[in-house]
Amino acid sequence: MNTIGKLFSVTSFGESHGRAVGCIVDGCSSNLAISEAEIQKELDKRKPGQELSTPRGEKDKVEILSGVFEGKTIGTPIMLMVENKDVDSSKYEALKDTPRPGHADLVYREKYKHVDWRGGSRASARETVARVASGAVAKKLLKDALGIKIIGYSRAIGNVISEGVLTDEKTIESNPVRALDKAKEMESAIKEAREAGDSLGGIVEVQALNVPPGLGEPVFDKLSADIAKALMSIPAVKGVEIGDGFSLAGLKGSEANDIFESKNGKVLTKTNRAGGIHGGISNGMPIVARIAMKPVASIGREQQTVDLKTYKAKKIKIEGRHDPCVVPRAVPIAESMLALVLADHGLISGKIPRVLG
Amino acid sequence: MNTIGKLFSVTSFGESHGRAVGCIVDGCSSNLAISEAEIQKELDKRKPGQELSTPRGEKDKVEILSGVFEGKTIGTPIMLMVENKDVDSSKYEALKDTPRPGHADLVYREKYKHVDWRGGSRASARETVARVASGAVAKKLLKDALGIKIIGYSRAIGNVISEGVLTDEKTIESNPVRALDKAKEMESAIKEAREAGDSLGGIVEVQALNVPPGLGEPVFDKLSADIAKALMSIPAVKGVEIGDGFSLAGLKGSEANDIFESKNGKVLTKTNRAGGIHGGISNGMPIVARIAMKPVASIGREQQTVDLKTYKAKKIKIEGRHDPCVVPRAVPIAESMLALVLADHGLISGKIPRVLG
Amino acid sequence: MNTIGKLFSVTSFGESHGRAVGCIVDGCSSNLAISEAEIQKELDKRKPGQELSTPRGEKDKVEILSGVFEGKTIGTPIMLMVENKDVDSSKYEALKDTPRPGHADLVYREKYKHVDWRGGSRASARETVARVASGAVAKKLLKDALGIKIIGYSRAIGNVISEGVLTDEKTIESNPVRALDKAKEMESAIKEAREAGDSLGGIVEVQALNVPPGLGEPVFDKLSADIAKALMSIPAVKGVEIGDGFSLAGLKGSEANDIFESKNGKVLTKTNRAGGIHGGISNGMPIVARIAMKPVASIGREQQTVDLKTYKAKKIKIEGRHDPCVVPRAVPIAESMLALVLADHGLISGKIPRVLG
Amino acid sequence: MNTIGKLFSVTSFGESHGRAVGCIVDGCSSNLAISEAEIQKELDKRKPGQELSTPRGEKDKVEILSGVFEGKTIGTPIMLMVENKDVDSSKYEALKDTPRPGHADLVYREKYKHVDWRGGSRASARETVARVASGAVAKKLLKDALGIKIIGYSRAIGNVISEGVLTDEKTIESNPVRALDKAKEMESAIKEAREAGDSLGGIVEVQALNVPPGLGEPVFDKLSADIAKALMSIPAVKGVEIGDGFSLAGLKGSEANDIFESKNGKVLTKTNRAGGIHGGISNGMPIVARIAMKPVASIGREQQTVDLKTYKAKKIKIEGRHDPCVVPRAVPIAESMLALVLADHGLISGKIPRVLG
Repeated sequence: MNTIGKLFSVTSFGESHGRAVGCIVDGCSSNLAISEAEIQKELDKRKPGQELSTPRGEKDKVEILSGVFEGKTIGTPIMLMVENKDVDSSKYEALKDTPRPGHADLVYREKYKHVDWRGGSRASARETVARVASGAVAKKLLKDALGIKIIGYSRAIGNVISEGVLTDEKTIESNPVRALDKAKEMESAIKEAREAGDSLGGIVEVQALNVPPGLGEPVFDKLSADIAKALMSIPAVKGVEIGDGFSLAGLKGSEANDIFESKNGKVLTKTNRAGGIHGGISNGMPIVARIAMKPVASIGREQQTVDLKTYKAKKIKIEGRHDPCVVPRAVPIAESMLALVLADHGLISGKIPRVLG
Repeated sequence: MNTIGKLFSVTSFGESHGRAVGCIVDGCSSNLAISEAEIQKELDKRKPGQELSTPRGEKDKVEILSGVFEGKTIGTPIMLMVENKDVDSSKYEALKDTPRPGHADLVYREKYKHVDWRGGSRASARETVARVASGAVAKKLLKDALGIKIIGYSRAIGNVISEGVLTDEKTIESNPVRALDKAKEMESAIKEAREAGDSLGGIVEVQALNVPPGLGEPVFDKLSADIAKALMSIPAVKGVEIGDGFSLAGLKGSEANDIFESKNGKVLTKTNRAGGIHGGISNGMPIVARIAMKPVASIGREQQTVDLKTYKAKKIKIEGRHDPCVVPRAVPIAESMLALVLADHGLISGKIPRVLG
Repeated sequence: MNTIGKLFSVTSFGESHGRAVGCIVDGCSSNLAISEAEIQKELDKRKPGQELSTPRGEKDKVEILSGVFEGKTIGTPIMLMVENKDVDSSKYEALKDTPRPGHADLVYREKYKHVDWRGGSRASARETVARVASGAVAKKLLKDALGIKIIGYSRAIGNVISEGVLTDEKTIESNPVRALDKAKEMESAIKEAREAGDSLGGIVEVQALNVPPGLGEPVFDKLSADIAKALMSIPAVKGVEIGDGFSLAGLKGSEANDIFESKNGKVLTKTNRAGGIHGGISNGMPIVARIAMKPVASIGREQQTVDLKTYKAKKIKIEGRHDPCVVPRAVPIAESMLALVLADHGLISGKIPRVLG
Repeated sequence: MNTIGKLFSVTSFGESHGRAVGCIVDGCSSNLAISEAEIQKELDKRKPGQELSTPRGEKDKVEILSGVFEGKTIGTPIMLMVENKDVDSSKYEALKDTPRPGHADLVYREKYKHVDWRGGSRASARETVARVASGAVAKKLLKDALGIKIIGYSRAIGNVISEGVLTDEKTIESNPVRALDKAKEMESAIKEAREAGDSLGGIVEVQALNVPPGLGEPVFDKLSADIAKALMSIPAVKGVEIGDGFSLAGLKGSEANDIFESKNGKVLTKTNRAGGIHGGISNGMPIVARIAMKPVASIGREQQTVDLKTYKAKKIKIEGRHDPCVVPRAVPIAESMLALVLADHGLISGKIPRVLG
């Protein structure tokens, strides 16, 4: 339920307004150099408080409580924790009995009967702290064991859609929306939405470079299937595609097939419409995946809902300042989920050794 | 690897040109009435040999070898098997060392070293027999335990895209492409592709009606995440979306949020852009999912590839008559995968009892 | 439920008087040479009909239905099946409503409501066919990948307890009770029990030689813990011990500790009271485990039970000829379960490669 | 690896001399009342510093960091943590390269290459804090959902073996060795061992009362098999038996079979040699299990070992005061492991609902 992965597994915990969030990373190869600073760096990428985001002062400070000794993993579970600080639950009290449209308030109540009504609880994007923290470990393992590099960017913000091709990583970090191009237009769209008390969704693309052939286990645990699950489990994600994805549905076989060619003794494909995966197994080309994120559900405008005490219609207005668009912050989250899947399949396939060095 | 599901689990086996394909269904509630005839009826939906498909005479006859006694399940593993008959492997001999573009031939070879080169082996769509057979059991369980109904149809064939709304199941079975509308145009497109020695992809939509709220386990085992995995594991699928999926990425929050309203003591939503899932948990609305299928990789035209003995370029032409479009046949497969996921979550959530009646 | 193992996994199916029993072996390394004849040889060791056992003519003939091509595994699921032949269910009809003491008849009825009342159904020792068949694959993998050898023998039959030390495998196969010594006394004890319409239990010891250090995953998936589970899951087993087991409870630390010593650059222990496992991890010494088997529950004597239709006391006499002692037949079963655990941990630890050769 | 349980699962973390130990309990039913005080009470039972144990002042204080809101579970992961305080690692420095006989020092080094050499690290009994803390949650769930009670006691300390029958729980808590009888003799034996610089093992028996029939999943996930695994995973345990266990091996069928009788509309057994489990499924009688614990490996006497830098023989004397016998402290640990297994099977079988109240 709150665990993902078979050999490289992550078990997550924590409510948005509880005492802490975090996870246990189990199965990471021993002898991997990893530090709180490296994990913190990744965490900082997902934090709000950036120019275009909500100005709440989240001070997320990760702590490694086990599994690392003298700077290197020892093969035991790695416990990563971030305390929840500066939590103000007062404004949620008004929402206890009025489910917010687009949110999980109601289904949690129906499913669990007794709920923590503060700040979205476990359905808050706050839980993604654990994803990014564990993803940082996975990224390091992939890099050190196989030289794999994971890169992501905002492919679309609302209706501003990038047409760029991922070649230069630096561009992405040079603008606040993590775009390849059209960054200015994306920024404008976000500002416009905020001013209108509204929100935007978008598309994130993630790639894994230098992935060796052979990762993925047919038929149900295909690499593509596990990537789809991992990415679809991210809050607000409603679609996942691999390679050219949905646009492949409209092509002919003669257009869609990637043609094999031999390069330096390796057989690769000329094009990469398949996104690096054939029959559920990595084929040596870059892994490419995209996710569709719905717009943030919490908006400043008045919305219609139901009062659960009376079962009558009621209007609500969600207080506070909300992030009008979380797509740029979702980039490190999507990267992390891809990293977790690749680390797991790296170990399962035997390509990543259980002990490094 | 070849198992899916936690409580309602399916373990699949079988190569395309081996002796048999099938699966073990474990964890199905006991005391469920199920017969070979019911499973056969579902299997017949996926079989080729229909007007628009390949005329190979697959005579798939399912046998229940365990787990059912006097017409009802007894809580033990249900073994379902279909023998492979009329298999002709001769034409594959020529392809042993020349990987077919768009196929898994090469990655299997790289991953497993020793492979069965006949008929796509385990990467053949032949393995979907096990999906549909086990899916038939899941469908029956969902129906008898919770009154859930699963319906699917061809949403797009190539560039012919349906704009229909699913209201009447009969339409779907009244045409060979399993479409809601535009069936004639879809048929024409398939015939055209066949005549051109080419192939088409498309989109399948599946829905589950009457699903109770509460199915799905946050944060990683969200209902949406498990559906994404199950659907993405189907051969040729490169994209999955829930509800309005990718089109939600371009909407504003005020447009995308489904508004709650009270109906007969239940709180449901006016629209269903979320596809019946909030925060990874079913919300009582129909579950809606769509898959993008790439066009069939095997086409009649000559294609470029590499000779693995010499590492030199080589042209191949894949012999025999191939299915120019498998989208209609994928409908029962997608339905089955959705059924497997719902049966599993039905048991996990306790909504489906371990013993019926 | 009916699956054991994480990477090398076995999913079993089949009722005693159903159509077939068997299993799917998933995750076995590819490129392993294995044949029906090799598996049959192991299966023949467990079959009844030997001099001291029941003379029912079980003709168990294993078939490999998938996963092996041209004599070698291809990394796909290996389906092993044995049809049930010459099944006569008539004498079980009388027992439908009178649970046999020591049997699972009643608990199956309480748990599953609808049951197959013939021949013990899934609780019959008939299911061990799947254990031995899959165990044969595991043994071959262990041998070819790591040079591991698995040996078992009857350590006790009733009150006749062996005091031998396992040095010479040939002795075991030279007598019908698979004993190291006291074979004649064991045989006599069995004959005596049969004549008295009674039955005997006993103890089986299994060893794995040449196991490399490093198998086993602390803290819950210790090698010892997984061996305990696998062995305790065998029908009629009520106790498991590793190394000197229960007798260690009465020793002092200074007596029980195995002292380390250096041999040819390896650090091993002088004695092996720990049975080759320290902290749940193999230490390079032989793995030693023992199981306690209760006597066969089906006996010729009249026994007291309850009529489930009237809830009144009733006497039953179980018809037919029963095996008075299954301990010798349990030797290959225990060996198989040990092999399954070691194969799984071999793969998990990375000591066994996913592709051989 | 560090996770146990399928629906009620526990993932453990922490090294002996690291920053903290603890676990994430996932899958516990929501709406269960549970407090830090209740968990602390169980933890206090395992702590050293009691009269007969080591006088190290472990001040274990459990904290609930998630999953509980206003005193009740909310269906999300329950994070339980105990900080490691007053840790003095200095004396372990001398042991870095000299593996202690009977300890896991060497196998960890061989398996993980880079290890934390302080205080036994992850192989220390310190990890059982997580077992007892999670066990406290499981016990409460079993009690509130099904009225199950778990009781354990020291059946043997060294060669002092109890012959008592468990009837009165109070006796157990009235003496420092948690015995039914012979408490004084057991105390004397422990004192004697301590004075001799030696240590003792023993036997713990645990029972679960009021378990409904139907828990346990044949064939591999038998209740007995999962109990065996859970108990064998406890540090220092080398044997597990269910019911009369090993002594059943010497009985005849006519002696060993528990005879059915009808009582108040229920069919139970007159005797309980099977320990409440038939065919791997609970039968309504008390569940009875026993574990054999080897004597504590750390003793005051000088012992022989190998210097890993030189591969030469070396003598070591383990400094500090060590617990001469941990059997009484293992009672709550064994109870906890039994509780974890029953909670898991309670959920799997549907006997425990996912939402209480």
